[in-house]
Amino acid sequence: MHKANAWAQMEPKGKLQPYTYDLAPLQSEEVEVEIDNCGLCHTDLSALNGDFGLPYPIVAGHEITGRIVALGDVANEKGLSVGQTVGIGWNKESCGHCDPCLAGDPHLCVNLKTTILGSNGGFASRIKAHWLWVIPVPEGINAADAGPLFCAGITVFYPLLEYGLKPTDKIAVFGIGGLGHLAVQFAHAWGAEVTAFSSSKSKHDETLKLGADHIVSSRDTTEWESLKGKFDLIIVTVSASLDWDKIISMLAPKGRLHFVGIPYDAIPVSVFSLLIPQISVSASPAGSRSAFNKMLRFAARHKIRAMVEHFPMSRINEAIEHLESGKANYRVVLDADF
Amino acid sequence: MHKANAWAQMEPKGKLQPYTYDLAPLQSEEVEVEIDNCGLCHTDLSALNGDFGLPYPIVAGHEITGRIVALGDVANEKGLSVGQTVGIGWNKESCGHCDPCLAGDPHLCVNLKTTILGSNGGFASRIKAHWLWVIPVPEGINAADAGPLFCAGITVFYPLLEYGLKPTDKIAVFGIGGLGHLAVQFAHAWGAEVTAFSSSKSKHDETLKLGADHIVSSRDTTEWESLKGKFDLIIVTVSASLDWDKIISMLAPKGRLHFVGIPYDAIPVSVFSLLIPQISVSASPAGSRSAFNKMLRFAARHKIRAMVEHFPMSRINEAIEHLESGKANYRVVLDADF
Repeated sequence: MHKANAWAQMEPKGKLQPYTYDLAPLQSEEVEVEIDNCGLCHTDLSALNGDFGLPYPIVAGHEITGRIVALGDVANEKGLSVGQTVGIGWNKESCGHCDPCLAGDPHLCVNLKTTILGSNGGFASRIKAHWLWVIPVPEGINAADAGPLFCAGITVFYPLLEYGLKPTDKIAVFGIGGLGHLAVQFAHAWGAEVTAFSSSKSKHDETLKLGADHIVSSRDTTEWESLKGKFDLIIVTVSASLDWDKIISMLAPKGRLHFVGIPYDAIPVSVFSLLIPQISVSASPAGSRSAFNKMLRFAARHKIRAMVEHFPMSRINEAIEHLESGKANYRVVLDADF
Repeated sequence: MHKANAWAQMEPKGKLQPYTYDLAPLQSEEVEVEIDNCGLCHTDLSALNGDFGLPYPIVAGHEITGRIVALGDVANEKGLSVGQTVGIGWNKESCGHCDPCLAGDPHLCVNLKTTILGSNGGFASRIKAHWLWVIPVPEGINAADAGPLFCAGITVFYPLLEYGLKPTDKIAVFGIGGLGHLAVQFAHAWGAEVTAFSSSKSKHDETLKLGADHIVSSRDTTEWESLKGKFDLIIVTVSASLDWDKIISMLAPKGRLHFVGIPYDAIPVSVFSLLIPQISVSASPAGSRSAFNKMLRFAARHKIRAMVEHFPMSRINEAIEHLESGKANYRVVLDADF
């Protein structure tokens, strides 16, 4: 039995405090990872805000990079090795024998275990996960900045792969933050024509550098009129309530409105607006392990990287305030300093 | 210049009356058809109810079968011939040069002309349409009963083809009326496991004969509990407001909720309920010309046919009352007797 150090919330709305707990013995299919860095995602803030009703103490964090320190008997035969640099995202264990697992979709496993819902996450010195979800960081990816690829990155990359987007397609991204700035890079590298819908004028030049062909206000909908019937895919990364009928009207025939952020309110969908141009509305959670590998190799090859600000983990409360204040430059990554 | 006889609504809510109008000269790409039969669809009732704001007189009807009597110069080179038995559905003309047309999706043509919105439809002796939408009735299909295949039939067949449904899939059909009784037959012949959701117990045995493996009440939702996560596709043919969250929960991972009927109210979609199991919500209008040909051959080979009640067209007002009263046995077809 050995210990992990962590930063935990001990009570509702409480500041995070140092916390030490026992790590259970390593199981055959598990891998133990020493954590070097962990991204700070809005879903972590939701967890710490009490939105998921988790029991205390809460150790959040699910955009992990680190090094393998131990492998269970089975995990030892899956191409992983001690010392290897790896990442862990939202999911940490799937069953391997349900229909989605057998179909190559373990992110839809009916017995899925996630990194922070029900166990201690990445704001810690160590973590254990099933070997499938301990994902090697390939050459060409800077591990210290890569944590966000394991949640934000896969989440916006997966729909391009899953729904067969083509380089000839037109892709729009709503919200150019932690997810959106990666979506713009992936869609641009995919060869598509990319339109960024942003509420912030200050990021204009940066968004063009990331690969956007056009930038449109996400607030002033008068600009949208000329975009009717244009997009093959609209990726929504924001949780604000928007004018969904107007957004759907910007889709081309057979287009798709795809959510990777969860709006606070139910979306009122007019079936008539879907029917005539044969539109789909959908959402997806992270992505399959196969998609993870493809995403990481694609990111390495196209030099796609999360834009991050680093904080030492000992300043995690300050980092959280920084993100909550809206001042974070795309993504915050915490560097373990236990 | 020659004339067509028809049954037209001359004023809001008025009974249909005999009406004669001039047929414009035949254009190069047009085909003129002498109408033998025309199905009576709920969309015709909507048109006659004033829902589309059409100018009077209104000649509805868009599930047409008949024989070619004349071909324009261009239409004459498209494999059609005078005397040939053909059908015409919701669409009557597409442009051929917009992106969807060029991609083989002329039902999504941006310059689409439909059979009854803006011109005189099938409750008439003659009609003209672009050659692409004058569709030969293949051997093995009884033309007199086939009108409903050209709207109801293609509408429920198209999603099976378009979304790549497999014979190993589980398909549910909500509403076993004009569209639903064809959906059950197509899904059964497709090799899928078919569950019919019906509000009517009286059709139970008939629905089993059509090919349903299971029949579930569409009203008593307590039966639905055991069906969570089951269906790969749910086809909704009804326009009632249902418990959409519960219906979505019956979808398997990567499942699709597909509308071919238009609910009166917008559907409140909880993005969270879509996200975890990666669900799509969609709708489609009729189908491509390629899908029409495949549907008709498939129907002929699998002996799929619309169950219809025939009325002479001169008793059209009686037929409309019969359909409106809910007494129609699946579909009403009017036989031209001008």
